[in-house]
Amino acid sequence: MRNLTLLTDLYELTMGQGYFREGKHEQPAVFDIFFRPNKLITYSVAAGMAQAAEYLENLHFNEDDIKYLRGLRLFDEGFLAYLKELRFTGDVYAVREGEIVFPYEPILTVKAPMVQAQLVETALLTFVNHQTLIASKSSKICAAAGGGVMEFGLRRAQGADAGVYGARAAIIGGCVSTSNVYAGKLFGIPVSGTMAHSWVMNFPTELEAFRAYARSFPDACLLLVDTYNTLKSGVPHAIEVFKELRAAGHEPKGIRLDSGDLAYLSKEARKMLDRAGFENAIICASGDLDEYSIRSLKDQGAKIDSWGVGTKLITSADLPALGGVYKLAAVYEDGKEIPKIKLSDTTEKITNPSFKEVYRIYDRETDKAVADYIVRAGETVDESEPLELCHPVERWKRMTVRNFRARKLLEPLISGGKKVAPDYTLAEISAYRAAEYARFWEEYTRQDMPHIYKVDLSQALYDLKQEMVQECGKGA
Amino acid sequence: MRNLTLLTDLYELTMGQGYFREGKHEQPAVFDIFFRPNKLITYSVAAGMAQAAEYLENLHFNEDDIKYLRGLRLFDEGFLAYLKELRFTGDVYAVREGEIVFPYEPILTVKAPMVQAQLVETALLTFVNHQTLIASKSSKICAAAGGGVMEFGLRRAQGADAGVYGARAAIIGGCVSTSNVYAGKLFGIPVSGTMAHSWVMNFPTELEAFRAYARSFPDACLLLVDTYNTLKSGVPHAIEVFKELRAAGHEPKGIRLDSGDLAYLSKEARKMLDRAGFENAIICASGDLDEYSIRSLKDQGAKIDSWGVGTKLITSADLPALGGVYKLAAVYEDGKEIPKIKLSDTTEKITNPSFKEVYRIYDRETDKAVADYIVRAGETVDESEPLELCHPVERWKRMTVRNFRARKLLEPLISGGKKVAPDYTLAEISAYRAAEYARFWEEYTRQDMPHIYKVDLSQALYDLKQEMVQECGKGA
Repeated sequence: MRNLTLLTDLYELTMGQGYFREGKHEQPAVFDIFFRPNKLITYSVAAGMAQAAEYLENLHFNEDDIKYLRGLRLFDEGFLAYLKELRFTGDVYAVREGEIVFPYEPILTVKAPMVQAQLVETALLTFVNHQTLIASKSSKICAAAGGGVMEFGLRRAQGADAGVYGARAAIIGGCVSTSNVYAGKLFGIPVSGTMAHSWVMNFPTELEAFRAYARSFPDACLLLVDTYNTLKSGVPHAIEVFKELRAAGHEPKGIRLDSGDLAYLSKEARKMLDRAGFENAIICASGDLDEYSIRSLKDQGAKIDSWGVGTKLITSADLPALGGVYKLAAVYEDGKEIPKIKLSDTTEKITNPSFKEVYRIYDRETDKAVADYIVRAGETVDESEPLELCHPVERWKRMTVRNFRARKLLEPLISGGKKVAPDYTLAEISAYRAAEYARFWEEYTRQDMPHIYKVDLSQALYDLKQEMVQECGKGA
Repeated sequence: MRNLTLLTDLYELTMGQGYFREGKHEQPAVFDIFFRPNKLITYSVAAGMAQAAEYLENLHFNEDDIKYLRGLRLFDEGFLAYLKELRFTGDVYAVREGEIVFPYEPILTVKAPMVQAQLVETALLTFVNHQTLIASKSSKICAAAGGGVMEFGLRRAQGADAGVYGARAAIIGGCVSTSNVYAGKLFGIPVSGTMAHSWVMNFPTELEAFRAYARSFPDACLLLVDTYNTLKSGVPHAIEVFKELRAAGHEPKGIRLDSGDLAYLSKEARKMLDRAGFENAIICASGDLDEYSIRSLKDQGAKIDSWGVGTKLITSADLPALGGVYKLAAVYEDGKEIPKIKLSDTTEKITNPSFKEVYRIYDRETDKAVADYIVRAGETVDESEPLELCHPVERWKRMTVRNFRARKLLEPLISGGKKVAPDYTLAEISAYRAAEYARFWEEYTRQDMPHIYKVDLSQALYDLKQEMVQECGKGA
């Protein structure tokens, strides 16, 4: 396992030494990861918590790291000795991977001694921002396709980890397989892929190329038909080889289209395959696809069974960063919580103070999610009483919920430095995402102009926030 | 070192087994990496070759990898035994990291036995696409800033590698430092960073927070001044602490602005610092910066000495994938080259066949680059004769160059599987990029509507291509 302890911004360490010298290094602090809205964010699918837990459990500076830090001539020996012994001993609460999440609500909360909590900020943001981003993009693409999406993006990923953890996040979001063999092995993801144009170009004729492939993979024969001319050459040659395969007792898999007018070509290819008796041969399409082009192809009646999605999924091309932040919510003095707030001229950017919990409120009749409800830790939600929900800023917007159930979204991930959350398999995580997604009215998850799902604050949290906003600025 | 041998698309391996069964696995083949134009690509800065070389030298499947592949039930024991012994034994030619490069020209060429050449496609594209993308974005941002750009993007990077190799690429493109400590250690990059808002929030007053920081870092005191009110609180408090520092014999470093109207605030802060006698204190700005906002700030006369650039650099936000491709250019039979071409309905997308070299033509008088010139390997460029350059498609567009020098862009990177290129330091690579960049007229590198730099084909290469386009389609 790579030791990623140095995967942090320098200021986490300079602040660390500052806290150390001021005697504040062991002061317990609470930080929340959350993200802000963006016109492209409707809902998001949480991911990255597994890598976060692995990183936290493994946190330690080795000799070499300390030597490097010493060489920077910024840190004194006392602090370096402290770092050498440092392990993560705090608690982390996080939503499950695959959870549907929304702007402003904490999706991961760290409660740890100040230096530790500060040190882990950067890497936790890197993992959660990246993987949540890709899982969310995948969910949108898979929703448009209605299933059968294969992740094909490794060559366009922003480095090896982006390809590998991106493939995992794509599966969480709903993809059925990846082309990435490394990710396949590491996470047990089904792998897919057959041939490139270079294969076809490497034989004297397309027919010979297809026959050679069929000889090697008689039971996994999916042929790329657009090297020369899809309808005049590729599909007829594929059918010829499919007939030979069937005569030899094998059933062909199908064809792949990678260029041209995918709507037209797929409809024509479908007819040709059906007429030849290959109704079960699938048509797979690839080439610069995303949720918009897939939806358009389906609107045009394209006959595509399976989608290979690359660049735009693995980079989340229209929104390449989630922009999640890690904000101080509280510190503890003598066991007593001191809530912290960050002001801003923009009301929505003022942070929510104190150690918090998030409840998801479901209507018991429909089993659909009604709103998320952020409370101060320790506040209870009584399912037997009507619950009044208020808009976090425009408080006159309120509704009363009855006959509901409330579920805590933040679960213990790490306790006293050790992972306590279950090790869910990827299949379990993806199934969880699908089940939870189904509990949202499509008005909240649709692609165009979705309704804004409510994320409200309890009255106690709202009151604390107001009070602190009034009080704040005194530090100035 | 991580073994990234499985970092490949499954189809590289299925094709590999196909070639193995057809007896074509050892046939030498030539593949080129190049990228196509995009409205956001003016020039690019090559990077990723160092990681590519490391990967190729280390290429081998371990027992565990073979076991995993066996479990897929796609590969036979003969092929698995072949893979187990496989090492990269081929030759790779590539432009230097830091080279200024353009669409259509090969920036990396692999000449290797077919199975090897195919296997390494995906990872080579991942490394070169990603790092070239970020080095290019960095170059554009640094050109706008005129220097002093610090890479701050790790928390928004698409995973750890994107942060680490992205930081390295940012330095190649012209950044002076990174906040990323891991990258700092791995590549010897200067690291920078001081404090976050949470530091200021963690003391009863801003003044106490600043004083505590100054106590810890009296000679590296750069204070974040926008937590409460930049001009009414942050800058005056910073000046107060700077005076105390100076009285104690230390010179302060400066201040950082992270929000608000950076143009206005920086001008006012500059006046306040100057009036207080801190003319040498720098003003550093951060917050959603890129080449566009930096240029705008400079146009408005902002007094900013140093720029912390995060999200938009580390993700290349407006173009999150370079889209480089890896295309078959030739195979060899009995030592004889058989050029290969990939047709397309779009003339510009037809590939350039055969093993090639790329020359950069410079005017001897100005030392400025005139054009790049792609030739078939073995063609010579005679500097003593006038050279006629023709547009690669519109052949009537031609110019004659005299008094020029020609330099080969592709240099041996790997020979017989071993790295032969020099190990340049990052500082050398960045200096090389700067020197070569200066050899381009600014008309080619400017941000808005740049001239298109010429990348031409020799007559011999053009003729071969025409002949093959006529011939091709016979495989159909």
